[in-house]
Amino acid sequence: MSCDTRFKEEASALGYSFEGELKIGGNYVPLIRDGRSVYVSGQIPRVGNEVVVAGAAGNQIDLSRAQLAAKICAMRALALPQRSLGSLERVKAILSISVFVQSAQDFTQQSEVADGASELLFKILGPAGAHTRTSVGVSQLPKNATVELSMVAIGE
Amino acid sequence: MSCDTRFKEEASALGYSFEGELKIGGNYVPLIRDGRSVYVSGQIPRVGNEVVVAGAAGNQIDLSRAQLAAKICAMRALALPQRSLGSLERVKAILSISVFVQSAQDFTQQSEVADGASELLFKILGPAGAHTRTSVGVSQLPKNATVELSMVAIGE
Amino acid sequence: MSCDTRFKEEASALGYSFEGELKIGGNYVPLIRDGRSVYVSGQIPRVGNEVVVAGAAGNQIDLSRAQLAAKICAMRALALPQRSLGSLERVKAILSISVFVQSAQDFTQQSEVADGASELLFKILGPAGAHTRTSVGVSQLPKNATVELSMVAIGE
Repeated sequence: MSCDTRFKEEASALGYSFEGELKIGGNYVPLIRDGRSVYVSGQIPRVGNEVVVAGAAGNQIDLSRAQLAAKICAMRALALPQRSLGSLERVKAILSISVFVQSAQDFTQQSEVADGASELLFKILGPAGAHTRTSVGVSQLPKNATVELSMVAIGE
Repeated sequence: MSCDTRFKEEASALGYSFEGELKIGGNYVPLIRDGRSVYVSGQIPRVGNEVVVAGAAGNQIDLSRAQLAAKICAMRALALPQRSLGSLERVKAILSISVFVQSAQDFTQQSEVADGASELLFKILGPAGAHTRTSVGVSQLPKNATVELSMVAIGE
Repeated sequence: MSCDTRFKEEASALGYSFEGELKIGGNYVPLIRDGRSVYVSGQIPRVGNEVVVAGAAGNQIDLSRAQLAAKICAMRALALPQRSLGSLERVKAILSISVFVQSAQDFTQQSEVADGASELLFKILGPAGAHTRTSVGVSQLPKNATVELSMVAIGE
């Protein structure tokens, strides 16, 4: 089964579509390629016009819902190189992801939240989904999003 | 009109000079080049010895002043490759910027703050100023700065 | 004296060993190499199973202890390419480090905390330890760690 098929199945399982326009919130571009390098802008859990998971993890938002937010961010972050490269089969490696988690003061499970994204990358891309990761807790994110995720990948 | 001329005009419009020493706050270097890659350290809105915009956005600092902070950070981040490469004409692409905004608890306009930097990059560099971006809200920054901005660029 | 010897001496001086398994907190990998590029995941001051410096800088944790946390993160971040490349002599450059400091609301010495890591990089690697840096204050980190540090290096 191809990465693109697995992507579609994961989207169905999450109950969201990532086929429309992927809106971004400002005067920049969602993806830049330079040679084999692919940089992806920070993604929030936005589906269409709506941020579907908003608020601080550990407070309004529990762990499993924060993990859902991380998964939606990761799906968006994959949809962009999929469109740019033509297929996720052409993603050869994910060099790094940065996962920012809007966190209540005493919430320390940022790694567990980021696992939502990491597991999805392995599931869809297989060995090419292995990645380095930095997850931190922040006090606030654009549009009150629970998670923001950026990515550097290699495409061929 | 060259990028360098536009840079000078923008500096005049902001009312600040970026021609003196660009002080940094610790034991590291402001810029590293490796082949075509250009990494720029996190810049705060410092002019000479003074951090000219300090405090949390949404609280002591309103949106337009936070955007000014982002612009000053971007000017510093451009002044460094300009000096290293000899001219901003040699900046071929901005792969990514990270924009950290010191934010009051309920402030969610980090993207709007970062637009200050993004618009300036497009204005000065033209198409080469297109970039990916990650903007997040943080609880505190070095020297109480309102914004910190780092950059990865391509120079030739 | 080789970088590897200096690394061993610094570990002795800190009183910690970095020779066992370097545990990470989730479903990702600690290091990825792509050509000459070496990406290192965010490291917290963990020795064995224990996070040895936890809590907010400026509140529970004073500056010198936060600097110790930054040093331990940097030692871990060096131990990983040392193992992958066979020797720290093969690290040709550190392109960038990101230093996230869990900070009390009024703590603004993130640069001084990060200097703990920066000085160690220069001390162990010599000129190859020069690096760009971004240090920010965040409200919380995984496992209540005081510091988290990620790195992009060049290895040959």
